[in-house]
Amino acid sequence: MAKGLTSRSIDYSKWYNDLVVKADLAENSAVRGCMVIKPYGYAIWEKMQAELDRMFKETGHQNAYFPLFIPKSFLSKEAEHVEGFAKECAVVTHHRLKADPNGKGLITDPNAKLEDELIVRPTSETIIWNTYKNWIQSYRDLPILVNQWANVVRWEMRTRMFLRTAEFLWQEGHTAHATRDEAIEETEKMINVYAEFAEKFMAIPVLKGLKSANERFAGALETFCIEALMQDGKALQAGTSHFLGQNFAKAFDVTFVNKENQTEYVWASSWGVSTRLMGALIMIHSDDNGLVLPPNLAPFQVVIVPIYKTEEQLNQISEKVEKIVQKLRKVGISVKFDNNDTKKPGWKFAEYELKGVPIRLAIGARDLENNTVEVARRDTLTKETVDIDSIEIHLQNLLEEIQDNIFKKALDFRKEMSREVDDYETFKKEIEQGGFLYCHWDGTPETEEKIKEETKATIRCIPLDGNKEEGKCMVTGKPSKQRVVFAKAY
Amino acid sequence: MAKGLTSRSIDYSKWYNDLVVKADLAENSAVRGCMVIKPYGYAIWEKMQAELDRMFKETGHQNAYFPLFIPKSFLSKEAEHVEGFAKECAVVTHHRLKADPNGKGLITDPNAKLEDELIVRPTSETIIWNTYKNWIQSYRDLPILVNQWANVVRWEMRTRMFLRTAEFLWQEGHTAHATRDEAIEETEKMINVYAEFAEKFMAIPVLKGLKSANERFAGALETFCIEALMQDGKALQAGTSHFLGQNFAKAFDVTFVNKENQTEYVWASSWGVSTRLMGALIMIHSDDNGLVLPPNLAPFQVVIVPIYKTEEQLNQISEKVEKIVQKLRKVGISVKFDNNDTKKPGWKFAEYELKGVPIRLAIGARDLENNTVEVARRDTLTKETVDIDSIEIHLQNLLEEIQDNIFKKALDFRKEMSREVDDYETFKKEIEQGGFLYCHWDGTPETEEKIKEETKATIRCIPLDGNKEEGKCMVTGKPSKQRVVFAKAY
Repeated sequence: MAKGLTSRSIDYSKWYNDLVVKADLAENSAVRGCMVIKPYGYAIWEKMQAELDRMFKETGHQNAYFPLFIPKSFLSKEAEHVEGFAKECAVVTHHRLKADPNGKGLITDPNAKLEDELIVRPTSETIIWNTYKNWIQSYRDLPILVNQWANVVRWEMRTRMFLRTAEFLWQEGHTAHATRDEAIEETEKMINVYAEFAEKFMAIPVLKGLKSANERFAGALETFCIEALMQDGKALQAGTSHFLGQNFAKAFDVTFVNKENQTEYVWASSWGVSTRLMGALIMIHSDDNGLVLPPNLAPFQVVIVPIYKTEEQLNQISEKVEKIVQKLRKVGISVKFDNNDTKKPGWKFAEYELKGVPIRLAIGARDLENNTVEVARRDTLTKETVDIDSIEIHLQNLLEEIQDNIFKKALDFRKEMSREVDDYETFKKEIEQGGFLYCHWDGTPETEEKIKEETKATIRCIPLDGNKEEGKCMVTGKPSKQRVVFAKAY
Repeated sequence: MAKGLTSRSIDYSKWYNDLVVKADLAENSAVRGCMVIKPYGYAIWEKMQAELDRMFKETGHQNAYFPLFIPKSFLSKEAEHVEGFAKECAVVTHHRLKADPNGKGLITDPNAKLEDELIVRPTSETIIWNTYKNWIQSYRDLPILVNQWANVVRWEMRTRMFLRTAEFLWQEGHTAHATRDEAIEETEKMINVYAEFAEKFMAIPVLKGLKSANERFAGALETFCIEALMQDGKALQAGTSHFLGQNFAKAFDVTFVNKENQTEYVWASSWGVSTRLMGALIMIHSDDNGLVLPPNLAPFQVVIVPIYKTEEQLNQISEKVEKIVQKLRKVGISVKFDNNDTKKPGWKFAEYELKGVPIRLAIGARDLENNTVEVARRDTLTKETVDIDSIEIHLQNLLEEIQDNIFKKALDFRKEMSREVDDYETFKKEIEQGGFLYCHWDGTPETEEKIKEETKATIRCIPLDGNKEEGKCMVTGKPSKQRVVFAKAY
């Protein structure tokens, strides 16, 4: 077990917090609820951004940038949206500070009060639809397929690094369409992009589904989501894509003239993922020794540690390593040679385990003689001795194997933790064990609310794929069209 | 002249504003002083970001992310910094809205007042140095070479898109060093990175120099800058790099134990460029027909417009174009084929001229017969007919030529507009003609202030390169060690 890292079995929540700090991913800042994302953590986020951005552009989207601030009045224009977002947010009321006449320091200048107070964006539907009004006249101006990478602020009371912070980084796509069908198609396309990204890049298996009315985005007609299962049996919503109907178009009076020369309101979608994905990544794969990173997202995939007694040995090893590094870079493997002389190999081994580097190579005097290197896998903690000559091919295959293996491990765990439950008494016991419970539900917000109050479990999603068998609600006995997925959630 | 674009000679300032909007780069938003960066403008910014980010990483820097908010008390910790930045900024005083009991809409909840008011960052030295305090104990923790891509807010009274906006996007590097020399070396390295980026990528010739005390960053011991000359003869500061000495380390008590086991304050640099660079890019190269983009930063470098009468002709042209597109992409040229049937070729020609696409290809029936294409350059507005067979090589060379040509054009203009002036009466007349005036100055803030009051000109920089001849101040006659550069500036 890594030094100073709480074991998952003792306190999963403390294990997570310890790991975020000890692996140099992030730390709390002097500002309540805001974190500092440290270089190692940010490097992982950058890799996520790059791949998502590539996928967005491949599906026809362009990036743009809208203001950080939203006029207070905009928030109340969409009736449901205001309920969801106008409550806890940062309000800018003044635009100047001045020296405190009664002492040291600064005070807010009472003469610099804003006439229209501004909100720091919690999400940008309102300011963006107010802008789209000027961009859209005719069907020829549609679709608009725009994404923004930005920071947003929601004044959360209880915060946890990456999972729930007052400020977080995200992307938000906001699209405008001429028809309902096209907007729904876009909404579904983007949840599929997110699912593919989560599974292929993050090695996180996800359930795709629809949210129930209770859990829907404020202002959406339908919310699609991807849900992942963490090692403690709790669910984490990893991304959402909303079909907004004509709600925001009506709120901001955005109309267009269609091909038949009639004026209609525009149809909309919005979709986003955030630095919360970092939380999912950390929680789903890591262990008591530290982070486990999928090779696709590791800041460096291979670390090389020299084992030596004399400077001469180090020189000989370095010469050999130089060749290995060149070979690996040539095939696109990112690699770090740690020849820092102030740290012992044992310390380095523990450090790179903690940081989740997928593969560690160790090379010593005997390896030089035999033209070999010791290869250690982070995911399984196993070691083998490998000939240096074809090391790049071996490691290419191994990186793929690790990527597949950690996905499979998470998928197996989810399968184990997923079960069908048919009566509410069993449900109450089973939900305490964690995992995804597939149950029949009568489709009413009241029943969902009752279950939430009594068990803290919510409907994570109404799955898109899989069995659509009919049944009876486990609580009310009323008819149900398909099983839905319940879990306790982050 | 492009439709609806004011001529530069009639109103340069209006020409700029028109161009920003008409070329789809940006527009004003509903929030005072904040702009919307539109997809075409943002695509240019993304190219700048990608290249700068590559250059930063190549020089050993890593990205990280620090909070948007800064506790009010932090701003007053560095005595000079507070003067420069604590005045006009967005102050967050509350964290909740509620329904207005007296009517419709929302009001700030008086019960949700923050105990410690927060400032939206105008720059991040204070929050970052407060963080570095925990990262640095020993010389082994140094240097820290961190950069952040972020939005910042300064409550400017008069705003202009890209040049001066309340919110803008930028990067800010913040480095920590064990020695004064190392911090100065870093400060100089980064101004050189900026100069290389401006000249090689943006095709903008820049003067590198030091700021006078009056124009220095609030809290810096020395500010290096790059200065560019716009077509109206006004200067624009395009990037700055600050040697901060130990000022912020002292303000936030950041010390380290050096190799000799003594405790010392840490040395610092900070450096940044912003979306203001977009303003420079637009103003320096463009003309009365619209934008002129350097090929290195154009969202697409080549546009292909088909000239046809019948659908059959369009099909034949499209077949040919498909092959050209493949050839161009293969050698890394970005290309758009505009086969939109609702717009005439003439409209398209004007549109892509307005948007500054470096090369336009037109292909019609006769071209099909002759296996040729018409190649039009945006920078010179000249045309030639070229054989299709080796089109990719021709265009590769042409793109390089255009990149070089627009740089040279801007450099020639700057040379023309740069002159030495030795007496203050001549200076007063000459400064009205614009350009860079090289003059002797006695080195005092008082003389600089007097010149600024009487002529609106400021010292743009004390040049690092070039002639170091001694002389006498044009105002006071006191001794001067070298000529400095005066100009009116944005």
